[in-house]
Amino acid sequence: MSLGSIFFSEVIGTAVLIVLGVGVVANNVFPKNNGTGGGFLMVNFGWGIAVLAGVYAAYKSGGHLNPAVTLGIAASGADEFVPGVAVDLGSILTYISGEMVGAFIGAVAAWAAYKKQFDERGDAPSLVFSTGPQIPNVAWNLVTEIIGTFVLVFGALSFGAWNGGKGTMLEALPVALLVVGIGASLGGPTGYAINPARDLGPRIAHALLPIPHKDSSDWGYAWIPVVGPIVGGVIGGLVFHWYAG
Amino acid sequence: MSLGSIFFSEVIGTAVLIVLGVGVVANNVFPKNNGTGGGFLMVNFGWGIAVLAGVYAAYKSGGHLNPAVTLGIAASGADEFVPGVAVDLGSILTYISGEMVGAFIGAVAAWAAYKKQFDERGDAPSLVFSTGPQIPNVAWNLVTEIIGTFVLVFGALSFGAWNGGKGTMLEALPVALLVVGIGASLGGPTGYAINPARDLGPRIAHALLPIPHKDSSDWGYAWIPVVGPIVGGVIGGLVFHWYAG
Amino acid sequence: MSLGSIFFSEVIGTAVLIVLGVGVVANNVFPKNNGTGGGFLMVNFGWGIAVLAGVYAAYKSGGHLNPAVTLGIAASGADEFVPGVAVDLGSILTYISGEMVGAFIGAVAAWAAYKKQFDERGDAPSLVFSTGPQIPNVAWNLVTEIIGTFVLVFGALSFGAWNGGKGTMLEALPVALLVVGIGASLGGPTGYAINPARDLGPRIAHALLPIPHKDSSDWGYAWIPVVGPIVGGVIGGLVFHWYAG
Amino acid sequence: MSLGSIFFSEVIGTAVLIVLGVGVVANNVFPKNNGTGGGFLMVNFGWGIAVLAGVYAAYKSGGHLNPAVTLGIAASGADEFVPGVAVDLGSILTYISGEMVGAFIGAVAAWAAYKKQFDERGDAPSLVFSTGPQIPNVAWNLVTEIIGTFVLVFGALSFGAWNGGKGTMLEALPVALLVVGIGASLGGPTGYAINPARDLGPRIAHALLPIPHKDSSDWGYAWIPVVGPIVGGVIGGLVFHWYAG
Repeated sequence: MSLGSIFFSEVIGTAVLIVLGVGVVANNVFPKNNGTGGGFLMVNFGWGIAVLAGVYAAYKSGGHLNPAVTLGIAASGADEFVPGVAVDLGSILTYISGEMVGAFIGAVAAWAAYKKQFDERGDAPSLVFSTGPQIPNVAWNLVTEIIGTFVLVFGALSFGAWNGGKGTMLEALPVALLVVGIGASLGGPTGYAINPARDLGPRIAHALLPIPHKDSSDWGYAWIPVVGPIVGGVIGGLVFHWYAG
Repeated sequence: MSLGSIFFSEVIGTAVLIVLGVGVVANNVFPKNNGTGGGFLMVNFGWGIAVLAGVYAAYKSGGHLNPAVTLGIAASGADEFVPGVAVDLGSILTYISGEMVGAFIGAVAAWAAYKKQFDERGDAPSLVFSTGPQIPNVAWNLVTEIIGTFVLVFGALSFGAWNGGKGTMLEALPVALLVVGIGASLGGPTGYAINPARDLGPRIAHALLPIPHKDSSDWGYAWIPVVGPIVGGVIGGLVFHWYAG
Repeated sequence: MSLGSIFFSEVIGTAVLIVLGVGVVANNVFPKNNGTGGGFLMVNFGWGIAVLAGVYAAYKSGGHLNPAVTLGIAASGADEFVPGVAVDLGSILTYISGEMVGAFIGAVAAWAAYKKQFDERGDAPSLVFSTGPQIPNVAWNLVTEIIGTFVLVFGALSFGAWNGGKGTMLEALPVALLVVGIGASLGGPTGYAINPARDLGPRIAHALLPIPHKDSSDWGYAWIPVVGPIVGGVIGGLVFHWYAG
Repeated sequence: MSLGSIFFSEVIGTAVLIVLGVGVVANNVFPKNNGTGGGFLMVNFGWGIAVLAGVYAAYKSGGHLNPAVTLGIAASGADEFVPGVAVDLGSILTYISGEMVGAFIGAVAAWAAYKKQFDERGDAPSLVFSTGPQIPNVAWNLVTEIIGTFVLVFGALSFGAWNGGKGTMLEALPVALLVVGIGASLGGPTGYAINPARDLGPRIAHALLPIPHKDSSDWGYAWIPVVGPIVGGVIGGLVFHWYAG
């Protein structure tokens, strides 16, 4: 597998993840929708199935879709991401750049699917695109994102280990269900970014798209859903390495 | 497998899809029902499981149930739909005509199951049978249906590719979950037809059935959930062909 | 496998089905419960997972749990229910009597789990135990039950056929999801008995249990959720036999 | 597998179970959350997926996560918990102590993820951590917990037996769905502890954590979600032993 194929695989998979993920939030939030007020469980299932579809779509690269997953797998001591693709700086940057580009594209597609809803509402809450805290607090918002991403990465690695594998292959269905569960269980305080690309890509899209009466992108908070998930993912990989070693 | 078996398989599978899919909308909408006001997530699961049951029921033909899927598989460069059934104009028309007939039958069955609810309500919203836009706009309604169907077809093809297959076999469970997710995530603006047969078959049934105080069939909108899904499905097949090739 | 083992297997499996199924209705309906007002989708998942657990528990007998399934499998032309147990009058009566006994036991267990809720409420709606129509009408209530059970039996048989089998083995997970879907999609008008034992066993339990201020058992309706499912199941088996033959 | 590995496996798995399980209750209950008022089905899925993630995480020890499961497997007559680990007093105590420690750690992690929500609310309902009855009654609360845990243990054992196994291996996905279902169906009266560690570990954490305006830990009720699940689990194991023998 060439690094170019890895890149495009992550672009496509992450775009699928984000068009469905941002879409379900838009459906829930905007008033002129069939799913308006559908509730948090609908949002949780929307994101979970977005992961299912995205992981399958990115079958060439193993479907990371998330820099915290890429770094967590690296931290777990894996030699290769997929057969023939060694874990090194080049492959890590290929994964992460594909994830960022895909997340941006997916956010633009979600905006296109909900174009009239964005226009009619008269303001575009940045929270449709990216996450924010219910109770702003740097330290504890970070803790929430670290715990959520730890569970994601440790869980995804353990799914691969369950049947005797080395724990580096993700299994799409249990990971999808895990994301439903992390949303329901740990998504309350900060909206469960648990993925730097999921948050930063759509945040950039929100800043660039021609949306009427746009609200703030809240750049002051933007680093937390980047740093928190990376810390949580790396810790998850390291603990799994110690545990499964 | 003869084309006659293909035809009946798609008839049965699409009838199962539509009786359950139209049924869940009727259950949610009409006031004298156990599921009245059950919410959009109930509708999403209803349609998703309708796909699960329909794909299994149509096991002889691979369970397309959707002209956009049939055309998307053809556009992906597949040689055969199922072993012994080449992709050509005859087989494509066989699939599509079976899907249309099955969708009509399924809509009639759903009407029969909810006969007294249709009668008592005193008017029969065509939206129980077929889809319509929350904010009418030809261009952007088309975009929404194109994006939704692209995700459906690209996703279904990637499910088949995940384990090394050629990407032409659909897998029932992930496709069903994907339909739950497309509904939750992209069903807000237009009601996620993402299937010309799903929309047109029940729309014809609505026009023909003896329902008291019938409302308009909204034929002016009817072409959008036909053209949009076909365009999205074909693009999905072509992109998958380039991606997986 | 002896007929005695078949009998006990169906007793245990159907008891598990009904304790969970009647339980979720009680949880939804009675006011002093954590799940009060949980909604119809919660009820649908409750019954679907009840099928999952019941089918697994009755692994010795193939997990029918439902006379309409037993008769539908017989109508589909199967030679054996499970290896060594021929389809004949004796085995059919063994299955059905086990299902009836299990349904009664399960209803008593659900009553025990909700004993204080039954007592405090001051009246015991028979609809916690058995089904009833939203709009009473003999003919159309029958039609609704026939259609629902047709989909159940045809679906369950097609799940077994999907991978080249003969269609006589039920697969627990898709059948469970199908029951979630039939509830959401076709459960509006009559409460989806789709199973004579599910309805009649708990109805008898309701009549016998020492519940304060008991309401009517509505015996006038009781034959519809027996006859309708049997007719629908047998038609489902016959059509599947023609289709798959 | 050494007993030390068993211990750490159960610690990690049970911690994952409880951080997600207590988390979903906190998300549902506290007002400043994205999932506030998400409903009982969201809570049910949160706990079910918590089991999925926890069982996978504890893949070295078979993922009991629950003293009632450990004792139920022992009662079912199993020789080994996992290959090389005989069922004896030492291994049973290793499992149970790992489950208790993990439950405590998971409760602390859930508190950390919702730290600001606990602080802002101004009181900390112990029911976020542990269970309590809707209608207090020693005998019938015990009955409810016994029935729920019987279904859990008998079901988990039957999942292992379905494909001809000995019934001692748990399968993660059906067990997770079963927990969703037991919550929806039997969680109304007492909050479905069905696990002594799930209740007692977080109850101790609630008593020790620095939460402002703490309410009572309700130690008078604490023995019921310990004794009830143990009784139900052991009966489930014994009945399964007789049934599958």
